[in-house]
Amino acid sequence: MRVGIVSLGLIGGSIARKLSESGHEVHAWNPSPAVLEEARPYGILAADSITQLCAAEPDVLVLANPLRAMSSVIEQVAAAVRPGTVVTDVGSVKAPIARLVRAAGLSPQFVGAHPMAGKELSGFAAADPDLLSGARWAVALEHDTSPQNFLRVVELITGPLTGIVHAVDPGVHDEAVALVSHVPHVLATQLLNLVARTPVRDLALNLAAGSFRDGTRVAHTDPRRTEAMIVENATWVAPALRVVIRDLERLAEQLETNGSPSQFFDQADTLRTEPPGAPGTRAPSESGERVVELNLANWRDLVQEAASAGARIIAANEAAGELTLQN
Amino acid sequence: MRVGIVSLGLIGGSIARKLSESGHEVHAWNPSPAVLEEARPYGILAADSITQLCAAEPDVLVLANPLRAMSSVIEQVAAAVRPGTVVTDVGSVKAPIARLVRAAGLSPQFVGAHPMAGKELSGFAAADPDLLSGARWAVALEHDTSPQNFLRVVELITGPLTGIVHAVDPGVHDEAVALVSHVPHVLATQLLNLVARTPVRDLALNLAAGSFRDGTRVAHTDPRRTEAMIVENATWVAPALRVVIRDLERLAEQLETNGSPSQFFDQADTLRTEPPGAPGTRAPSESGERVVELNLANWRDLVQEAASAGARIIAANEAAGELTLQN
Repeated sequence: MRVGIVSLGLIGGSIARKLSESGHEVHAWNPSPAVLEEARPYGILAADSITQLCAAEPDVLVLANPLRAMSSVIEQVAAAVRPGTVVTDVGSVKAPIARLVRAAGLSPQFVGAHPMAGKELSGFAAADPDLLSGARWAVALEHDTSPQNFLRVVELITGPLTGIVHAVDPGVHDEAVALVSHVPHVLATQLLNLVARTPVRDLALNLAAGSFRDGTRVAHTDPRRTEAMIVENATWVAPALRVVIRDLERLAEQLETNGSPSQFFDQADTLRTEPPGAPGTRAPSESGERVVELNLANWRDLVQEAASAGARIIAANEAAGELTLQN
Repeated sequence: MRVGIVSLGLIGGSIARKLSESGHEVHAWNPSPAVLEEARPYGILAADSITQLCAAEPDVLVLANPLRAMSSVIEQVAAAVRPGTVVTDVGSVKAPIARLVRAAGLSPQFVGAHPMAGKELSGFAAADPDLLSGARWAVALEHDTSPQNFLRVVELITGPLTGIVHAVDPGVHDEAVALVSHVPHVLATQLLNLVARTPVRDLALNLAAGSFRDGTRVAHTDPRRTEAMIVENATWVAPALRVVIRDLERLAEQLETNGSPSQFFDQADTLRTEPPGAPGTRAPSESGERVVELNLANWRDLVQEAASAGARIIAANEAAGELTLQN
């Protein structure tokens, strides 16, 4: 495959290095040319501009730029992209990006994606070809997604990038990641804020152990990146925070009045039956695999229903027009 | 040393195994005798009752029972303990336990402690002699703490248990751990609750990655243990939760009204200059060590001032009457 990448940050850089390592032709543009120099020894070919990157006619063009640059990048891509290229992205929200893409007239060539992996560092220096190994990806499936485009993006992800794909409606994606990624980032930041301001800060940091270290890990991410992610998904983060506020108020009141907060501590018991740390690393279930042919008129319904029932896409073959699902 | 341990759970079991491994004489009592049988192969001597445990005249008696049993255990110990024994505990709150101890007339023989380590599993089966290796401990220093008792408990912790000690007022301890341990447990539980109840639960769990896994790790602890810890420290947890609620309300409002939440994401910047995960694992500073002799009339002031300035106690010698501090 020939792949173009806009922006060699943590995610874009990791994808570029992984693809280049496995023999694919990788072109990249980055706003700072110094980063393109750093990337050259890894076999990553430098483009001078987004227009030049589009002119290389990649099979897939990956928008890995920060969210705040997305509107401008999408406009430039829409103006220069060739018909044979499928455009995807790795942004942490899907519905707002889908709206920008639609407004720019790029939707016939676009399939959005979101790798559920990362770390608190950023930039090409932190990029790692194995960062996304075996990662779960959400890939947006909309009412007018073209089967060829979908297959090509999923083939890239499940093939050379060794990922697993969950097909998902952009709005449902944003609702779900508000809960499992954006609110966790807010609460981690809040924990760090709490300790940063307290008069007993030094003692608190000296006594801090595992619960604080794990609870604040993602708060060490670049705060601008976290802020952009939260603000872009305000639609879903704000109501989730309202639920958190309401629940914590009830708990605070119980603690203040000697009430019993048992219900607060018990309500997630169904999730506690899973081993600690399991959600992100569930073992594949016993049930089998099946192939969906994307020349069927109802392929989107088939894929969506399977996805709702928990099926993941583990392989795709654009030439054969087939997706392989696993329950 | 001869050490007695009340309750062989995760912490008591880990201490017992570590001490036994390093050749100390360890006696233990546990409400369920089956656990004492499990412990026998590790060289841990079984006592039939707390009274019998006290009769073994341990140099130090460690109360490692759950918080909910503390009141009853302290009463039994107060009735049976011999004059040569110093009593300590490993509970996650210090002021409420100090009050129980005082009410039982046990304070002349008591020095409370709290190891800042643990894991989400519980019970003797999860005990591990290395769980507390190099751990930070808070050790309570009160206006009437006896120097001999303090030295003996600190010698046990910094010697065979290989810990590092922060001397701390019980109330200040409870305020600090509310921030770095109890509120983190509440927020981890809240995150798990949020996902347990949502209609998009399955997709959310499928997309969950590092931020959710780390942010909810401690929510997999036995909810009764977490609840007891929070309720016992309600005095400090409730006001800390009020701060969290106020801050999150401001953030939710900004997200709902397109305001700028930059300040929320920036206010912990001073803590971000430390490497991720650092608070629990700070490297020893360059500055030196010094010895405090506990026959000085003002030893408590000296130790407290040094502790407030961040000094840790790295060694103690009861026979010589000396503590070694490190800045």
